[in-house]
Amino acid sequence: MKHLTDIEIAQEKELIHIKEIAAKLGIEEDTIEMFGKYKAKLPLTLIDEDKIKKNNLILVTAITPTPAGEGKTTVSIGLTEGLNKIGKQATVVLREPSLGPVFGIKGGAAGGGYSQVVPMEDINLHFTGDFNAVEKANNLLSALIDNNLQSNCCNLNLDPRTILWKRVIDMNDRALRSIVIGLGGTANGIPREDGFNITPASEVMAILCMATDFEDLKKRLGDIFIGFTFDKKPIFARDLKAENAMAILLKYAIKPNLVQTLEENPAIIHGGPFANIAQGTNTIIATKMGLSLSNYVITEAGFGADLGAEKFLNIKCVAAGLSPKAVVLVATIRALRHHGGAKKDEFNTPNLAFVKAGFCNLEKHIENIRKFNIEPVVAINTFSNDSYKEINYIIEKCAELGVNAVVSDGWAKGGEGTKELAKAVVEVVESNKSHFKPIYNWKTPVKEKIETIAKEIYGAIEVDFDKKAKLNLARIDRLGFNDFAICMAKTQKSFSDNESLVGRPENFVVTVREIEIAAGAKFIIPILGQMMRMPGLPGVPASENMTIDNNGVISGLS
Amino acid sequence: MKHLTDIEIAQEKELIHIKEIAAKLGIEEDTIEMFGKYKAKLPLTLIDEDKIKKNNLILVTAITPTPAGEGKTTVSIGLTEGLNKIGKQATVVLREPSLGPVFGIKGGAAGGGYSQVVPMEDINLHFTGDFNAVEKANNLLSALIDNNLQSNCCNLNLDPRTILWKRVIDMNDRALRSIVIGLGGTANGIPREDGFNITPASEVMAILCMATDFEDLKKRLGDIFIGFTFDKKPIFARDLKAENAMAILLKYAIKPNLVQTLEENPAIIHGGPFANIAQGTNTIIATKMGLSLSNYVITEAGFGADLGAEKFLNIKCVAAGLSPKAVVLVATIRALRHHGGAKKDEFNTPNLAFVKAGFCNLEKHIENIRKFNIEPVVAINTFSNDSYKEINYIIEKCAELGVNAVVSDGWAKGGEGTKELAKAVVEVVESNKSHFKPIYNWKTPVKEKIETIAKEIYGAIEVDFDKKAKLNLARIDRLGFNDFAICMAKTQKSFSDNESLVGRPENFVVTVREIEIAAGAKFIIPILGQMMRMPGLPGVPASENMTIDNNGVISGLS
Repeated sequence: MKHLTDIEIAQEKELIHIKEIAAKLGIEEDTIEMFGKYKAKLPLTLIDEDKIKKNNLILVTAITPTPAGEGKTTVSIGLTEGLNKIGKQATVVLREPSLGPVFGIKGGAAGGGYSQVVPMEDINLHFTGDFNAVEKANNLLSALIDNNLQSNCCNLNLDPRTILWKRVIDMNDRALRSIVIGLGGTANGIPREDGFNITPASEVMAILCMATDFEDLKKRLGDIFIGFTFDKKPIFARDLKAENAMAILLKYAIKPNLVQTLEENPAIIHGGPFANIAQGTNTIIATKMGLSLSNYVITEAGFGADLGAEKFLNIKCVAAGLSPKAVVLVATIRALRHHGGAKKDEFNTPNLAFVKAGFCNLEKHIENIRKFNIEPVVAINTFSNDSYKEINYIIEKCAELGVNAVVSDGWAKGGEGTKELAKAVVEVVESNKSHFKPIYNWKTPVKEKIETIAKEIYGAIEVDFDKKAKLNLARIDRLGFNDFAICMAKTQKSFSDNESLVGRPENFVVTVREIEIAAGAKFIIPILGQMMRMPGLPGVPASENMTIDNNGVISGLS
Repeated sequence: MKHLTDIEIAQEKELIHIKEIAAKLGIEEDTIEMFGKYKAKLPLTLIDEDKIKKNNLILVTAITPTPAGEGKTTVSIGLTEGLNKIGKQATVVLREPSLGPVFGIKGGAAGGGYSQVVPMEDINLHFTGDFNAVEKANNLLSALIDNNLQSNCCNLNLDPRTILWKRVIDMNDRALRSIVIGLGGTANGIPREDGFNITPASEVMAILCMATDFEDLKKRLGDIFIGFTFDKKPIFARDLKAENAMAILLKYAIKPNLVQTLEENPAIIHGGPFANIAQGTNTIIATKMGLSLSNYVITEAGFGADLGAEKFLNIKCVAAGLSPKAVVLVATIRALRHHGGAKKDEFNTPNLAFVKAGFCNLEKHIENIRKFNIEPVVAINTFSNDSYKEINYIIEKCAELGVNAVVSDGWAKGGEGTKELAKAVVEVVESNKSHFKPIYNWKTPVKEKIETIAKEIYGAIEVDFDKKAKLNLARIDRLGFNDFAICMAKTQKSFSDNESLVGRPENFVVTVREIEIAAGAKFIIPILGQMMRMPGLPGVPASENMTIDNNGVISGLS
């Protein structure tokens, strides 16, 4: 049998009309806004708080990943197919892909193999325009800021050296990280330092993810903190009368998107990725939409559970009043070998010793999930080079911890390959063992909240605050932003802030370099180690190997 | 009667489903790709070269405009309603609005009063994502260029000082005109000068407008000229293997968009505005689509006839083999007063002396249209403060020149207000007097082509080439780009390059400051006077007065 690429599998699938997917959720054709035959926007009027309370939310997260990722999206989609196969009504609720990774190294975010959401190309490229809307709203505010600096008539006396608001672009573009703008004379604005972040790292994306309705969205946009006047008064987006125009740009973006899985089950895709530099889960509105329409909702949070799951639980679930019934921890044998000391060229060769040595990473993630009083299930996302001995070792070690570890083969088999995982998840849900509680209270001081995450979740013995971070803490206090949630920016490659420390590092210190403020999102963003909020392209970008023929058929997109 | 704003009129209209508009053009529901209920994309397979030859193309252009514009879009839409009212099958084919003017001063581009295309808000905001796709394709190339400068493995030896390719953003953002990128150390790229143009000024937009099909689009994207290596070899987008990934981003953007007028007639909207700094007409594909589906196609070109119409005729009609049957020259009494010497506070007061003195502007545009061997009709786009005497003067003066001048009142009355104009247009079409010929041959040398436009159309006595422009000419020659069309960048406020010279300036010299190259679009772009390809926001941006309520109802958008 010829081995098909992800895009070939996706292109082979004959999709059903999106109105049929809507019908499966009890939604009439006239209620949805179609974008072609296979994508649609869902109106917020479908959100139903009573149903949200009754239905079951399952979070899919992962062990500390290798650069290729451990297949959380694939497992989330596969599990949804499996749940539907065993008679449950399940919907997968995912995040939207960013063009940065699509043209960089990692590829898109529509799953893989026989566990994909489709139309895969559309989802990975522009989709229904939400990222563009976020980018334009962000950059409109930037243009209004620079216009105000230049203005004679309504000048706010903003000190350009204090402006924290950056422009964004949905592209891996390192040359835009640090720039000087406003050059070339008096007609071209006031020269100042600026930079671009990648669009998913925009506070507007965070606001879209945290907003509960349109009114809340607009309020939060107005609350964006920009910088100080020369006489040290804080300036917000509302001072520039920016929030209405920004909200106008987000009129459609606030509505979740409906597509289908390869097995014709519903998939809702909405909001931002990048759990290392952003909150990294889909929108509160999308998760609530899923729970309003479906008995089981499978959702994912980015990178390892120390990043995405921690933020999903401490930030999103707290803000939205959500309470997950189970957490699926995705592990690959490959990544466990890596955490056990395997070098890159040894990743794909069976080696029980490496797996044994790497188990500590999975173990720490299991311990962490239980700190939230939620019961985990381990999904072993299997590859053809996994050995029976390695897999059995993981199953047995998990059993010793009282955790069910199940092989998941959605990549090769779709829902047929995840029925056992589905059953294990249902068992945990029906056992009623999970009673979510966050690991910190938003009302505790910022420094303490940062230390709680670093110590409890990462396993650090201490948190070092650089001089700049200390000044930032004092500013946060002065501005009265102590009650905000903590949205860490940390490498996804290690529990620590040092990406070379694999496995379960111990006796380490994490360093907070600086602390950003997202006042509209109500986030405090500590930047750990060398994290940057704008990625770069690799030596050979993925874009070089993509083609499109004259009929619009794409290849090389993954 | 309460005076309604444009957006209120648009919001009052109960739209019909876009499949019904498609049906009026003989297109089946299954053929179109819907974006919600009121917008759709049309597949290129509907283009029919035989029908294109048989059907009638009408260009709407204008006299030299005041900053508010003279209502070309309004007249184009109104005329389409009028033609349908007198029993012709007519479709209006327009350009897509840019967010820059929407949030700046001028407002959107969906017509006005009772001559609008709807849904007005959607058309003015993101629409179906075409501008975003253009922007992303442009900026992907930028990211690939900077990544290559930084790269160890496939470095093209590109000299960063020679890079002509700029980034773009669809925003009025003067602070991005001139910037320095790549700052902050070795991880952040190679420092160099760069700048952002507004998205409609992107060469990618020009390529989208000029492409005849997907194959041609991809070829042109590969042909984009970027700069030189340190040993003076030219580098193109294809050298970065960029054209496929760029084309992938434009997969949907190449398809024209279908919407409706207030009187439920078909409107096709596709491609770029800004005839001062770009080619400023809709796409060749959209015009051909209209002519494949409709007996009369009304299309517009931006600003005065010296800009949009000149480019429409010499560039687009030549490239696409199109031959307009009539040109409608839009004039307002207000603008004629302006050209006759009225100050801003005198624009709206009847004054026959000013109108008499300003007629010379209209007269020169009439002469110019006839140089293309096309018969003009003058549409007097009427306002409530126009006097009978002023209007009659224009009608009589035009009659002396053998030109039919007709009052057009589409703004207040829709198609009922444009029936006379429609009859006048049909008369010209059926008289078969127009036999289009361009005023220059693409094969003549670049300098000569520039001089022909400046002397024949603008009325200049001489063209001055600055030192930089002379060097640019030599470079164009070395690169073998002599056969390209000329796409002037000139102020829209005067026939000359000095915006204060109203009326019909004489004995003036125009200065070519520099000359840009758009090798994929096959354009040479002479920059006249102080033109900039990135606008700025005004002291009080339009965005400040926009609101959106919690139900998504927008006000203040024009």
